[in-house]
Amino acid sequence: MIRPGMVRVAVFHGANINLLGVRDPDVYGKSTFDEVNRRIKDQADQLDLEVKILQSNHEGAIIDAIHDVMDWADVIIINPGAFTHYSYGIREALAAVRLPVIEVHLSNIHSRPEEWRHHSVISPITMGQVIGFGGLSYLLALQAAKAMIEETRT
Amino acid sequence: MIRPGMVRVAVFHGANINLLGVRDPDVYGKSTFDEVNRRIKDQADQLDLEVKILQSNHEGAIIDAIHDVMDWADVIIINPGAFTHYSYGIREALAAVRLPVIEVHLSNIHSRPEEWRHHSVISPITMGQVIGFGGLSYLLALQAAKAMIEETRT
Amino acid sequence: MIRPGMVRVAVFHGANINLLGVRDPDVYGKSTFDEVNRRIKDQADQLDLEVKILQSNHEGAIIDAIHDVMDWADVIIINPGAFTHYSYGIREALAAVRLPVIEVHLSNIHSRPEEWRHHSVISPITMGQVIGFGGLSYLLALQAAKAMIEETRT
Amino acid sequence: MIRPGMVRVAVFHGANINLLGVRDPDVYGKSTFDEVNRRIKDQADQLDLEVKILQSNHEGAIIDAIHDVMDWADVIIINPGAFTHYSYGIREALAAVRLPVIEVHLSNIHSRPEEWRHHSVISPITMGQVIGFGGLSYLLALQAAKAMIEETRT
Amino acid sequence: MIRPGMVRVAVFHGANINLLGVRDPDVYGKSTFDEVNRRIKDQADQLDLEVKILQSNHEGAIIDAIHDVMDWADVIIINPGAFTHYSYGIREALAAVRLPVIEVHLSNIHSRPEEWRHHSVISPITMGQVIGFGGLSYLLALQAAKAMIEETRT
Amino acid sequence: MIRPGMVRVAVFHGANINLLGVRDPDVYGKSTFDEVNRRIKDQADQLDLEVKILQSNHEGAIIDAIHDVMDWADVIIINPGAFTHYSYGIREALAAVRLPVIEVHLSNIHSRPEEWRHHSVISPITMGQVIGFGGLSYLLALQAAKAMIEETRT
Amino acid sequence: MIRPGMVRVAVFHGANINLLGVRDPDVYGKSTFDEVNRRIKDQADQLDLEVKILQSNHEGAIIDAIHDVMDWADVIIINPGAFTHYSYGIREALAAVRLPVIEVHLSNIHSRPEEWRHHSVISPITMGQVIGFGGLSYLLALQAAKAMIEETRT
Amino acid sequence: MIRPGMVRVAVFHGANINLLGVRDPDVYGKSTFDEVNRRIKDQADQLDLEVKILQSNHEGAIIDAIHDVMDWADVIIINPGAFTHYSYGIREALAAVRLPVIEVHLSNIHSRPEEWRHHSVISPITMGQVIGFGGLSYLLALQAAKAMIEETRT
Amino acid sequence: MIRPGMVRVAVFHGANINLLGVRDPDVYGKSTFDEVNRRIKDQADQLDLEVKILQSNHEGAIIDAIHDVMDWADVIIINPGAFTHYSYGIREALAAVRLPVIEVHLSNIHSRPEEWRHHSVISPITMGQVIGFGGLSYLLALQAAKAMIEETRT
Amino acid sequence: MIRPGMVRVAVFHGANINLLGVRDPDVYGKSTFDEVNRRIKDQADQLDLEVKILQSNHEGAIIDAIHDVMDWADVIIINPGAFTHYSYGIREALAAVRLPVIEVHLSNIHSRPEEWRHHSVISPITMGQVIGFGGLSYLLALQAAKAMIEETRT
Amino acid sequence: MIRPGMVRVAVFHGANINLLGVRDPDVYGKSTFDEVNRRIKDQADQLDLEVKILQSNHEGAIIDAIHDVMDWADVIIINPGAFTHYSYGIREALAAVRLPVIEVHLSNIHSRPEEWRHHSVISPITMGQVIGFGGLSYLLALQAAKAMIEETRT
Amino acid sequence: MIRPGMVRVAVFHGANINLLGVRDPDVYGKSTFDEVNRRIKDQADQLDLEVKILQSNHEGAIIDAIHDVMDWADVIIINPGAFTHYSYGIREALAAVRLPVIEVHLSNIHSRPEEWRHHSVISPITMGQVIGFGGLSYLLALQAAKAMIEETRT
Repeated sequence: MIRPGMVRVAVFHGANINLLGVRDPDVYGKSTFDEVNRRIKDQADQLDLEVKILQSNHEGAIIDAIHDVMDWADVIIINPGAFTHYSYGIREALAAVRLPVIEVHLSNIHSRPEEWRHHSVISPITMGQVIGFGGLSYLLALQAAKAMIEETRT
Repeated sequence: MIRPGMVRVAVFHGANINLLGVRDPDVYGKSTFDEVNRRIKDQADQLDLEVKILQSNHEGAIIDAIHDVMDWADVIIINPGAFTHYSYGIREALAAVRLPVIEVHLSNIHSRPEEWRHHSVISPITMGQVIGFGGLSYLLALQAAKAMIEETRT
Repeated sequence: MIRPGMVRVAVFHGANINLLGVRDPDVYGKSTFDEVNRRIKDQADQLDLEVKILQSNHEGAIIDAIHDVMDWADVIIINPGAFTHYSYGIREALAAVRLPVIEVHLSNIHSRPEEWRHHSVISPITMGQVIGFGGLSYLLALQAAKAMIEETRT
Repeated sequence: MIRPGMVRVAVFHGANINLLGVRDPDVYGKSTFDEVNRRIKDQADQLDLEVKILQSNHEGAIIDAIHDVMDWADVIIINPGAFTHYSYGIREALAAVRLPVIEVHLSNIHSRPEEWRHHSVISPITMGQVIGFGGLSYLLALQAAKAMIEETRT
Repeated sequence: MIRPGMVRVAVFHGANINLLGVRDPDVYGKSTFDEVNRRIKDQADQLDLEVKILQSNHEGAIIDAIHDVMDWADVIIINPGAFTHYSYGIREALAAVRLPVIEVHLSNIHSRPEEWRHHSVISPITMGQVIGFGGLSYLLALQAAKAMIEETRT
Repeated sequence: MIRPGMVRVAVFHGANINLLGVRDPDVYGKSTFDEVNRRIKDQADQLDLEVKILQSNHEGAIIDAIHDVMDWADVIIINPGAFTHYSYGIREALAAVRLPVIEVHLSNIHSRPEEWRHHSVISPITMGQVIGFGGLSYLLALQAAKAMIEETRT
Repeated sequence: MIRPGMVRVAVFHGANINLLGVRDPDVYGKSTFDEVNRRIKDQADQLDLEVKILQSNHEGAIIDAIHDVMDWADVIIINPGAFTHYSYGIREALAAVRLPVIEVHLSNIHSRPEEWRHHSVISPITMGQVIGFGGLSYLLALQAAKAMIEETRT
Repeated sequence: MIRPGMVRVAVFHGANINLLGVRDPDVYGKSTFDEVNRRIKDQADQLDLEVKILQSNHEGAIIDAIHDVMDWADVIIINPGAFTHYSYGIREALAAVRLPVIEVHLSNIHSRPEEWRHHSVISPITMGQVIGFGGLSYLLALQAAKAMIEETRT
Repeated sequence: MIRPGMVRVAVFHGANINLLGVRDPDVYGKSTFDEVNRRIKDQADQLDLEVKILQSNHEGAIIDAIHDVMDWADVIIINPGAFTHYSYGIREALAAVRLPVIEVHLSNIHSRPEEWRHHSVISPITMGQVIGFGGLSYLLALQAAKAMIEETRT
Repeated sequence: MIRPGMVRVAVFHGANINLLGVRDPDVYGKSTFDEVNRRIKDQADQLDLEVKILQSNHEGAIIDAIHDVMDWADVIIINPGAFTHYSYGIREALAAVRLPVIEVHLSNIHSRPEEWRHHSVISPITMGQVIGFGGLSYLLALQAAKAMIEETRT
Repeated sequence: MIRPGMVRVAVFHGANINLLGVRDPDVYGKSTFDEVNRRIKDQADQLDLEVKILQSNHEGAIIDAIHDVMDWADVIIINPGAFTHYSYGIREALAAVRLPVIEVHLSNIHSRPEEWRHHSVISPITMGQVIGFGGLSYLLALQAAKAMIEETRT
Repeated sequence: MIRPGMVRVAVFHGANINLLGVRDPDVYGKSTFDEVNRRIKDQADQLDLEVKILQSNHEGAIIDAIHDVMDWADVIIINPGAFTHYSYGIREALAAVRLPVIEVHLSNIHSRPEEWRHHSVISPITMGQVIGFGGLSYLLALQAAKAMIEETRT
């Protein structure tokens, strides 16, 4: 399972993340979805990571994509959006491909008033979470991804 | 956010609503799906509303459609069908586009025996609900939509 | 149970509804209680409905009144106010007289922060609910009442 | 607290019991409210009991009446109707007057489908319950009342 | 299912009822188990009922006995003792033989401090309950049994 | 909302409080209801407060009375008695009149064995509570009322 | 643990299964208990299985029997009847003998209205369940038993 | 609804079932998805059943497919995969087409450590379940399907 | 209740304890049931205690035996096995005979993964518990029994 | 336990109360911790009470201090701060020293949005509570302390 | 981890245990804290154990002490007092030092009325518990400690 | 609140973190506590941050320390250890000093089997969390701290 060469990271954005910058800027920050993706790519370049990015509002499309990167990726970074709270389908897909997963959230889901936001069905099968730092959450996750894979390879 | 001219209403039907007239006529009424849509259009004409109708059994397709009407519609009327009870994805999409939403149900979900039918994850982000009057529920929602938008515009 | 002639509707307002216009105008709207009743009567006239209106802060008075209209009314429209959440007495009275009931709320009880507001002990024995459209909720309920009774009579 | 002479029994009927014979005869039996009261009086005569009967749909009226019989009655028999399930006011009144209480229900509240019917807030402060035998429930309660008071007096 | 002739009643006592008079006289009364049974037989004679009595601390023995009286008894009176709170086996046996069942308890199970005593798994499949009047509870149940069967036969 | 002149306080006693001195003196103290009211009036005189007192076992009567003092009182002191635990009607009335409310209990509701006594539906909309000091609870509440209103007026 | 020769299956029927055909034919089917057992034996013959069958309404008798087949049986098939929902004693016995267990139910326990029927304390220690196909459930279980043991032996 | 001729069975596999053989072989067995499907087809041939098989990770695609077989299939066999635990959309679709449904699981969902795996939202609307026998579960389900349809047709 | 002479101890083993040494040696230890009983007898001899031992998989047999030792034993030591978690029948029997009871478990029921093992319905009516020390648990319980009875007698 | 002479009161402030005036002035008031203590001392002087004050963020230090005042104090007044919601250690210490305790809170803990603030583990072992009047809460508690002790001494 | 030589036991007493003999002698016994410690030391001498004893009302002090004995002790005996019910800090410390732990309670925590006393957060990481025998609980724990360590060493 | 100059970060380690490297290396990693602190300091140097580090097993000591850094620190990074799950005292201290807080955990608390580990009482008042990356979690938190403060200052 340890692949030599460049570390490859698949970044998945779940439901409604494409509206970033449009939707609730107080909660999710002012950066647009494209800006966030550009910062992800820049950071990947800097860390010498190969990166693939996918956003979908279709749970099935994300499950398919997780299956598809099974043999390509070294790590999956996922911000499941609203799927965080009920998609056992995505959880099972992530568990099935047996890749390390890092869960990311833009806002601090634990300080928001709705009870259901405080529980993630994804977290138990991830390696860790980076939550609440806006677009920076993804960048920290990329660093964590790199550090972990390199530790495994040595 | 106040747009002059004709009031535009997007009507979304969720999972299994396309089977109307086929499925459980005791519960959902004898009108077919096409008949209900025709009555919606007639009522819209009478109220001088512009209306777009979409049905899908795919949660992701409804989320995409909600995003798509963000700049077109003045109001969203939605009967989420089975999605009512678990789709935080649709809820978040509706909340994100910041349009007034009216939730509609054909049957009285509160008098049905299954516990899970009594709770809607959509209701908290809507302006109101019209529940239990069969196809008439949509027509009352259209009237409410018109009255509310006109009040806002004056 | 099908009575010929004019459709007769009993409209009941529960606890604290008499303070309308005085209490929390942000939540319940600026119309006073008298204005709402006047709009109900106007709408009834327009729809050719006979209407009786009663408000009480006494649960027992509302139960008595429900019993009293058993042989007069074709439909009951009720906004139970605070009784919505605990009065099994009113629920049982409504069920006992075997008339169709429409539940009405001025504000969207599902979007208010207190948990107890999200549950109605009345809803399971009603035909349907119209919730969240201010005074308009009553007017839509009157239309629904008329349509349903006429459908039954034909 | 032991009073010589005839045993005096106060019989209270709570919300909606006045509709007996009208409401849900399948559940509550075909006897009318007047017939049930007549049978109670006949049975009292046979058992040589003095009896007072009160029905009210007003919780407050029942609480007042409980206070009023404090110095007159030896036993209270109560069918609280819908108040069974939430009236801590009636419970506290019954507990305060320190008379033995027998709770009566016409139908078997434990076999009815609604969860809330299975719990009585009154039962814990009663001496016992007679549940499910229609009008006969009251008559058995009268016998129990007599037997218990006589046992206390000897 | 309606059998002419004398009414036949099977009386079952569950776990630990044989200790009556020995165990907790404050709660269960001073009468011994034999005295209670003698009073049951006397009352049966007076009411012209045929009666069979069985006590067992073995759930299986009570289930067997319920099966055995299926074709003999007109009514079952049961004080399940501790089995009240968990024996779905006895509940199913009672339901299976399709005879009317009256549940009896010596003490008021609802006023005792332990939470688990407040719930009976037997009650939902009975016709009614007589609870809290000591040995008198059985005697009232016998009367109810007689009245009900006679009503059915006429 | 700040009225010059004497501070006016409405004191409301809920269900069963009229039995004070009669009912459970171990729990509620030996003072009678009249004595408590006399002490309230004496204390009011001493603090130069104008005071109105009302007791009712009718929830509706208390709601009406709350509405009635809306324009007269500066503060409401209420011991809701049994209504504490379920009357959303009284809660809503208190919230609607937008006066500061002080909740009072004679006994320490939190140390009594019944679970339901530990929860007050009234507390969230009050300014504060004085609980457990017998009749003294009212007197401390009067002081708090005075101090708070005076602080507001300066 | 792998025994050569014919596969031996112990079939246990729990509480009230002996009433099959008598009790609730709508739910449990019209076949009598003897017919079901005859079909089990025929199917065993066809599959070349050795089979022992026991029914008891005594939990202890079933536990004893489970212990007794520990060294004889290759597989246990059990329809625990009412014991399904509370007998940790049977569960522990099944777990202790370390034989593969197949749980069988005649009716679909998940579609019946009572909540307690939806949970089996036996399922977690079984290999699998066959639920809802009437007497056929046992026959499918016999096939599964044979296939699994043969797979183990090869 | 009884169609003469060959029995037709639609087999649906839900989310992540396509990874069979790849994912967690300890839990789900070593057979690949293709092998399982081949065994299903072979068994169908042997039983003289016509069979259609569909797998999708998209809930909406499965709902559409259920609608599509409404007039073709006699029975539906479904292993909903992760959808088992939350897809009320699939449940409603299955209920709407009014065909008998058999639910299948490869592993014993009741013995797995995660609480959420123990509850299926699909089970209540199925005829029965076959759970825990790996690929054999489907084959037993096919037999059950055949037996049930033939019984209906005779 | 204080009996002079040798201290007499009844030791009861509940369901499945007879399999000791056979079942799950990792959890329950390697000693067989006979060895544990021999150690109990040896320890009793050393402490000069008279001891009676009974094991049964029948709840009813244990209840009968508890009744039988009521006048013989000074203390009861019981390891209820699986009955620990649901037998209110055994609990009531133990409470009824009014003897001091010591509850014993071989394994630490609180560290085992199944939630239901963490709760004992027996513990509340015992004097104390010795849990988790294998066969030694019984021996410590014997010492505690002796010390307590001697303290009572002095 | 009744000590003649001056009434002695120990006042304890729990975690974070030392930040008073610094932290959330909107919720806790603008007075600093020193000012509140000065007002406590002034009020004590006026009421002729001897007073000792201690604040600590260490639960253990408060427990030690409660033990230390056991033989000195007549009453304890405590604002446990955050310890209110989980410190069974402080609760047990207060219960152990068998002194009357008055619980004080600056803000109305029942109107704050977080659920956990609504429950105090301390309240059940106190005599009463004064909640929500800022620094005044302590002063009212001092009066209550004096009145109660004087009543006890007479 | 097996250390030759004398067995060393660390005995920790948590919050409020120092008040032994002072506090609630009915519940905790009449022996003072010093007497209990002397008996522990005497028993240790008799069993040839080396023993260290520490009591603290500071959770942190107990955590520190657990860390400190990591390399000295063979077994830890702990009566956590009130910390039993919430100190995950002590639980984690005990788990971290990887020594066998025996939990001790003076009173039977399961028979006390408060719900929260019935749950120990410490038990799951202990080897066993000795509960309810007053000071004797510690002495039995010492014996268990010795037996277990000796068994490990042989 | 925006302080010019070097960014100052207070790093707090809660209960048992000092055992790092000693305790459960599989869960918490092989680095010792000193090594982790050294890496924190190195990272701080690299990012040009001023850093203060404190570990304590005393909740009170951490609360005091949080108060102490109120005027010094720009950000607090805290790994509360076991305090995560119950210390409302630490939560309130963090909220009171009104500094941005980043919560850190070495292991993924959401994938550990114990239910109580999945809930943090600290998270709702933090800005974000970094969970599950071993010692790297602190380093990512330092980066987040720097980025956030710099963004605020510009």
